[in-house]
Amino acid sequence: MEKFVVLPEIAKLGHVALVSENLEKSLWFFRDVLGLEETEEVDGVHYLRAWGDFEHHTLSVRAGETSYIDHIGWRTKRREDVATFAKILEDAGTEVRWIKAGEERGQGEAIRFELPSGHRFELYYDMEKTPADPERKSVLKNQTYKAWRKGVSPRRIDHINLQTSVNNLEVVNFLREKLGFKLREYFVNKNNEQVASWLSVTPLVHDVAIMTTDRSKKPNEMHHLAYWLDNAQDLLRAADILNEAEIEFVGPGKHGISQAMYVYVKDPGSGLRIEIFTNGYLIFEPDWEPIKWTYEEYLKYGSTYWGDRRRDDVDREAQIRELIQSR
Amino acid sequence: MEKFVVLPEIAKLGHVALVSENLEKSLWFFRDVLGLEETEEVDGVHYLRAWGDFEHHTLSVRAGETSYIDHIGWRTKRREDVATFAKILEDAGTEVRWIKAGEERGQGEAIRFELPSGHRFELYYDMEKTPADPERKSVLKNQTYKAWRKGVSPRRIDHINLQTSVNNLEVVNFLREKLGFKLREYFVNKNNEQVASWLSVTPLVHDVAIMTTDRSKKPNEMHHLAYWLDNAQDLLRAADILNEAEIEFVGPGKHGISQAMYVYVKDPGSGLRIEIFTNGYLIFEPDWEPIKWTYEEYLKYGSTYWGDRRRDDVDREAQIRELIQSR
Amino acid sequence: MEKFVVLPEIAKLGHVALVSENLEKSLWFFRDVLGLEETEEVDGVHYLRAWGDFEHHTLSVRAGETSYIDHIGWRTKRREDVATFAKILEDAGTEVRWIKAGEERGQGEAIRFELPSGHRFELYYDMEKTPADPERKSVLKNQTYKAWRKGVSPRRIDHINLQTSVNNLEVVNFLREKLGFKLREYFVNKNNEQVASWLSVTPLVHDVAIMTTDRSKKPNEMHHLAYWLDNAQDLLRAADILNEAEIEFVGPGKHGISQAMYVYVKDPGSGLRIEIFTNGYLIFEPDWEPIKWTYEEYLKYGSTYWGDRRRDDVDREAQIRELIQSR
Amino acid sequence: MEKFVVLPEIAKLGHVALVSENLEKSLWFFRDVLGLEETEEVDGVHYLRAWGDFEHHTLSVRAGETSYIDHIGWRTKRREDVATFAKILEDAGTEVRWIKAGEERGQGEAIRFELPSGHRFELYYDMEKTPADPERKSVLKNQTYKAWRKGVSPRRIDHINLQTSVNNLEVVNFLREKLGFKLREYFVNKNNEQVASWLSVTPLVHDVAIMTTDRSKKPNEMHHLAYWLDNAQDLLRAADILNEAEIEFVGPGKHGISQAMYVYVKDPGSGLRIEIFTNGYLIFEPDWEPIKWTYEEYLKYGSTYWGDRRRDDVDREAQIRELIQSR
Repeated sequence: MEKFVVLPEIAKLGHVALVSENLEKSLWFFRDVLGLEETEEVDGVHYLRAWGDFEHHTLSVRAGETSYIDHIGWRTKRREDVATFAKILEDAGTEVRWIKAGEERGQGEAIRFELPSGHRFELYYDMEKTPADPERKSVLKNQTYKAWRKGVSPRRIDHINLQTSVNNLEVVNFLREKLGFKLREYFVNKNNEQVASWLSVTPLVHDVAIMTTDRSKKPNEMHHLAYWLDNAQDLLRAADILNEAEIEFVGPGKHGISQAMYVYVKDPGSGLRIEIFTNGYLIFEPDWEPIKWTYEEYLKYGSTYWGDRRRDDVDREAQIRELIQSR
Repeated sequence: MEKFVVLPEIAKLGHVALVSENLEKSLWFFRDVLGLEETEEVDGVHYLRAWGDFEHHTLSVRAGETSYIDHIGWRTKRREDVATFAKILEDAGTEVRWIKAGEERGQGEAIRFELPSGHRFELYYDMEKTPADPERKSVLKNQTYKAWRKGVSPRRIDHINLQTSVNNLEVVNFLREKLGFKLREYFVNKNNEQVASWLSVTPLVHDVAIMTTDRSKKPNEMHHLAYWLDNAQDLLRAADILNEAEIEFVGPGKHGISQAMYVYVKDPGSGLRIEIFTNGYLIFEPDWEPIKWTYEEYLKYGSTYWGDRRRDDVDREAQIRELIQSR
Repeated sequence: MEKFVVLPEIAKLGHVALVSENLEKSLWFFRDVLGLEETEEVDGVHYLRAWGDFEHHTLSVRAGETSYIDHIGWRTKRREDVATFAKILEDAGTEVRWIKAGEERGQGEAIRFELPSGHRFELYYDMEKTPADPERKSVLKNQTYKAWRKGVSPRRIDHINLQTSVNNLEVVNFLREKLGFKLREYFVNKNNEQVASWLSVTPLVHDVAIMTTDRSKKPNEMHHLAYWLDNAQDLLRAADILNEAEIEFVGPGKHGISQAMYVYVKDPGSGLRIEIFTNGYLIFEPDWEPIKWTYEEYLKYGSTYWGDRRRDDVDREAQIRELIQSR
Repeated sequence: MEKFVVLPEIAKLGHVALVSENLEKSLWFFRDVLGLEETEEVDGVHYLRAWGDFEHHTLSVRAGETSYIDHIGWRTKRREDVATFAKILEDAGTEVRWIKAGEERGQGEAIRFELPSGHRFELYYDMEKTPADPERKSVLKNQTYKAWRKGVSPRRIDHINLQTSVNNLEVVNFLREKLGFKLREYFVNKNNEQVASWLSVTPLVHDVAIMTTDRSKKPNEMHHLAYWLDNAQDLLRAADILNEAEIEFVGPGKHGISQAMYVYVKDPGSGLRIEIFTNGYLIFEPDWEPIKWTYEEYLKYGSTYWGDRRRDDVDREAQIRELIQSR
């Protein structure tokens, strides 16, 4: 038998590095309202995670002049995958920058590079699994913090949703060919052009979605970062908590694509939208045929299967109509 | 760069093939009470699946003199993995029997073999994705049947739990070394011997668990087959449904190991125990350190974190005490 | 001590008598989709109730040329209250019609009369508590039918919501002074005129609500009949069921007034809107101060605290704006 | 028509006055774990209520040498009912003690007296509705505090459950005849003697239950004070919170009697058992026939319909068996 050699693989979405123009407000939102736990604060960077996250952090926040996403971190399956990915990317003409171990707290050597859309990704393997301090530690050996300490109290990071004004397929092909993502669902405009795509390296329906916006928008915007709750009821409780904190939100509702429930709420400090997310399905099938939603199907059930249909950022239906005409 | 060659891999738990000494009662239980959908009936074999299952079946039931599990089917990641696994197993001295395509409805060529405990596994790649008939088909493109048509109405198959009187580690090592399962959690007796293990090839905490029973028991028993529900509330609704059907059950409760909620109920036709299962955590970490529960930890939180502690089959605590003395 | 004499009192909302222009479709909706149980069918009238209702029926449906609400039945606290109410009403100039025992299946002697808005109410005391037939009977002695037999499966009737184009206070005063209802919550337009009122004789926030519509509408319309579910999660399940039945609905969302969750769906046979309803608060305080919501408060939190804000019948915000200008 | 004169009536359970031998621990439990809000602290008495309670307090706690229930307060429907009840009770030979307005913070003139079992009841009408302070006040006009601020976070007080070693019917008859309670459900021992009773003045199945214990126990013990949650899912969340606080509890489970779900947990400071309680049914029927559960029915479904059957105080089944033999 031949010697087995393994393809480099991404294991999971790791974290989002956020810069906030109002750090205090962002910290109030993420710690008190959303209920993330702070692992530690080092040199002005606050490292946060949910009670069921196992890595050192799944969100970092630091102060800045303007708010933006510095990068989106992904953990590889093996230590050597970082270098292998670097080689694959460089061979394909993508500029790769190496980040030294420790430059980001708790993290080993990493690489950063940009998608064709300009979104900055980071790949790393080593990451500390800093345990919770005794006061916040769960009595369960397989759980980081006590659950339900404060606010919405999600279990773990789930996925990111990116927006781009460049061609959707260009980004999708990069994700599939260079990084090993699998296409799970997508929808097309009236010209049958793929304008929004859900992809994953895990059985989650998406670790990343990429939505086309109209051409007046920036190529590398972020629609949201999602955190997972275990039960739909917890989402309704989240809605009560957000109203009591006097923070506007959209939802609850259920998507047809992914079959998951959502509440969308923006961090009032940075403007980063968070999706509070639950239910949905998992894909274990190795020969998954990507689900194609036509424009009409998308409008009927794909986006909002039921529930609050408002969009707090864009009128997505109007936007899709625009896309149809312009492309 | 070297040529990439891939290791054979199991993608997912596929199905359980059940023989029932009271087929009529089993069908009433699985179709009307549990609420599985029947894909089709061929030559006396009833092929069933949950509304969110994508394969042709996740449970088959046929009549027999006595009730038993004929085999447990697992789907491989690639078509060629079936033969590769066959070679690996035969090289290691395990007897492998080839099953022709179509011998099991909807299924391609497969192999069957026994674990060191005698539990019979099947590996296959090809399996029909028979769509639901129009009356039962979901309006959602990514969902097989309408949800909530009848009874408990779980979403999908989740895992199996096996019992054996042979050495736990012997089975665990076979699963890890020959089939690529990863150890996720385990507990030990007072002599620090591993007596129960949770393993998976997916991010689920377990696709299979293997529990040691006392030596008077058979080496290849099944503790349960689990079906997944999306929400904890659905489990409470299941409890109401089971009581109204006058079927005894154990639960609801929450396990510490896996952090999942459970209701255990036996098919009154065959005696097969079904775990109605929800919540819990996923493991995306590539360097997961198996969680070890000591005997005391297991008794306190590992088995029943909270809820109904009864066991309908064995007094597991008494059993563990016995294991401690005898080994 | 003086002799104690009791005031006549209404105990509870009893039932709604519906005439449907498409009986078959209405029965499909109420029995298969909503999941009400049919007590019996007598002379073309189908008597329905929820699994936790104790009276013979809480909804009756019969065929008619056009769809309308024949009457809304209320049960009195004592048998003699029916006659006492008749006297009070007649003394005040309200026409009262006596209905013979048995004219409505299961019901004793009753009176019918109209509110100032023209809505027809019925008062009765005697009503059969026909038990469920053995196949559908709950194993619980305090529950009529097995729960969760079909569809949405609400527990019990909850309240009615009436619409009128006549003066809101005129109807409210009639309900308070003649029938003993207590005002619980209300909202006013910009001219500080009470335009919508929630009243009850029980600790429910409302057994009846009366909403002012614009003057072009009929004086005696019904906005909805509500059935109660025990848990918010059950409402989300209802949303799935309605979508799978391809019936449009509004919700889920949470009202500020009553603090209850809702899904609004119309019987496709008759057009009668059903509110699937849960959570909310109870009023046990004997000196309850009616909650007044200003126009702005009503728009912000009173109507939709969160969730789906659409209205399937009228644009209620536009309507309120109209009311403000016209009155 | 005769002049209408009204019978004195109890409107609702008001509060429980607790003395704790470990005030600090009790306050930690009630404020941080259970999540009650403190209205104010006056002269060492801590006045607490749930976020949806409307009165000044539903629980008061002060320090004492030993832990005990000082009294159980009930609000009357009208101010004059307090004196009328005093007269009825004194006429029947029950000793009545008047409590001056303000002796209990926020409360008007009241009377105190003992049931035949020795449990001390208080009747009052006037009670302050102190609003929440601005930081904790709900954005909803009909809700006292923001929900979900801390811990389990129940909505409101629900009922009390008393234990007595005196004859059950003696206490029941007192409650019915002197105080206007209605019997809703009860169970009998093998000699057909009523040994446990559920009674209410509201549509709740019980505002008070009275359970017979064996004769070695005190005549005036309290089994529990119950607080209400809106959803069954909230009870499962409560179970997680209690485990993380390392406080033992019993449940979750569902009672057949009342059809409600429960978790039982003791305040570690005073030993007072709290029932965290949800779901169940309401009785609006004016001619409710009390549900009788035989001994066998009680054991099968009445006590624990499903769920955790353990009792943390007494082996109730053993106790009932004892009752059967001794009476």
